[in-house]
Amino acid sequence: MMLPSSVTICEVGPREGMQIEKGPISTASKVRLIDMLSDARLPKIDVTSFVNAAWVPQMADAEEVVRQIRIAPGTDYTGLYLNSKGLLRALATGRLRLEGWVLVSASEIFARKNNNSTPEELYQAASRQIDLYRAHGMGVDQVVVMAAFGCNYGGDIAPDKVLKVIERAFQVASEHGANPPDLTLADSMGWCTPHAMQRLLGDIRARWPEKNIRLHLHDTRGLALASAWVGLQNGVRHYETSVGGLGGCPFGNFSGASGNMVTEDFVHMCHEAGIETGVDLNALIEASRYAEEIVGHPLPGKLLRGNSLHTYRKAAAVETHV
Amino acid sequence: MMLPSSVTICEVGPREGMQIEKGPISTASKVRLIDMLSDARLPKIDVTSFVNAAWVPQMADAEEVVRQIRIAPGTDYTGLYLNSKGLLRALATGRLRLEGWVLVSASEIFARKNNNSTPEELYQAASRQIDLYRAHGMGVDQVVVMAAFGCNYGGDIAPDKVLKVIERAFQVASEHGANPPDLTLADSMGWCTPHAMQRLLGDIRARWPEKNIRLHLHDTRGLALASAWVGLQNGVRHYETSVGGLGGCPFGNFSGASGNMVTEDFVHMCHEAGIETGVDLNALIEASRYAEEIVGHPLPGKLLRGNSLHTYRKAAAVETHV
Repeated sequence: MMLPSSVTICEVGPREGMQIEKGPISTASKVRLIDMLSDARLPKIDVTSFVNAAWVPQMADAEEVVRQIRIAPGTDYTGLYLNSKGLLRALATGRLRLEGWVLVSASEIFARKNNNSTPEELYQAASRQIDLYRAHGMGVDQVVVMAAFGCNYGGDIAPDKVLKVIERAFQVASEHGANPPDLTLADSMGWCTPHAMQRLLGDIRARWPEKNIRLHLHDTRGLALASAWVGLQNGVRHYETSVGGLGGCPFGNFSGASGNMVTEDFVHMCHEAGIETGVDLNALIEASRYAEEIVGHPLPGKLLRGNSLHTYRKAAAVETHV
Repeated sequence: MMLPSSVTICEVGPREGMQIEKGPISTASKVRLIDMLSDARLPKIDVTSFVNAAWVPQMADAEEVVRQIRIAPGTDYTGLYLNSKGLLRALATGRLRLEGWVLVSASEIFARKNNNSTPEELYQAASRQIDLYRAHGMGVDQVVVMAAFGCNYGGDIAPDKVLKVIERAFQVASEHGANPPDLTLADSMGWCTPHAMQRLLGDIRARWPEKNIRLHLHDTRGLALASAWVGLQNGVRHYETSVGGLGGCPFGNFSGASGNMVTEDFVHMCHEAGIETGVDLNALIEASRYAEEIVGHPLPGKLLRGNSLHTYRKAAAVETHV
């Protein structure tokens, strides 16, 4: 075990969470949630998506959200874009710290279903995007591998194949003079297990020991935190999580169905292991309660109902002295 | 890592789950659920509690449930008892495989609140119970430590203190000529974290390398599976879990609030790591759906909505060949 002394959490709830909610959520509510997350001292918040409002109506107020949020010192605010048009909109806000990324998929079928592209087309798109980053003075920060642990359409994906996809992505970047320092393993369909995480991290670390790994896990089958623990055991220091477990569930707004790994539950796991996050857990739970209020249905986060241990420790200290 | 090649799961949903449900659940429904769990090939099922029906009305049909269930070859059926009266009732059914246990608490306050006893009184009760087991030809199978990882009333409990409690429990057993081979660490209040599990297991293994450890975890704060993974990494082979995550939640029947570690989600984690459980996962998920139906509210189990990977693998195999 080589647990890191600290980790960096990127909160993706306002972006990945909100985009799948069906009910109307006001711009004011989104802004208040983001401000509460800033108060909880999240180091990085993904606040919105610059996508076509005709496809994702929930994101029609992207510019307005970015304009209205309070920019807290110590927090980076970012947003998602999928093409040059989105990137230009995001840059135009002048308030975001945007990263350049090379997006690839370990699953051909997922690339087709999710991005309407062949893997080859994704590499070509990456080439064009790298030129765009350059033109706007941005770096090429990360390679993102979708379906890194398996695919609802394509089934299992052998680690060897995932490694080949990563290899190719870094090669494309290199051909454009870029060397992304980070590698994000994304598991939006919830195939990751602790065992699969151990194996893939071992393979990746052996091949690219210098890369900074980031994990984007979903709790579809309940194993996000267990897999993240294996990430911590392997020294991984970057995690993308969602307040309350907002987001990502393809099964509708059914209570109990799960989206992304829950930010507050992950923070709890880290703090109890002596791993610093910089996050104020109690303030974060307040933000999670507010998130639940504005989406109007129960969120899967456990501390929402189980409460933090701080609360009980404080009560116990009183009880013990009675 | 020294993952075991197989584990034994004790399903506690019909007992620990049913006892906290408020709605009336018919004896026929309970029996059908247990029969479905037998069909899923659970090696051990805790079917009911022989407690005072005035306190726990849901358990008034204990004898009737035991009489009506189908006894499947390869499954052991057991039941909970808290005193000699309960034990005699359980023995009288003639259909259960009962274990003798020495129950102790790492938290004084929890012993008082939960068992209306001082720790000293629990040791004395254990002495009397050991004599009772002997009188009925039973073994003394396990020491059970409640609040082994912390307590909602008493707060943190130092591992040293937990070790002293265990030491004393084995000593009491020894004074009565018994040497329980098993040690159950129970965390009904959900204080366990992967880090705490690693530490306590290390301490216990160093002190009692010969004892067979069993884990009884609750998912109150979302860390049951992550903690169980650490159990597996340390070679622990016995787990008590609950179908669908029935049971144990002190916050009422609120959807999303969690009880015991979810059987099917744990089975999924094991199978994906190549650890055998003997359980038919798809049949177990069917049982979980039935459990949800009879309690009448959503259960927290993730595979209930996320589905097993088998389902997707099968679909993917078809898709790939189209």
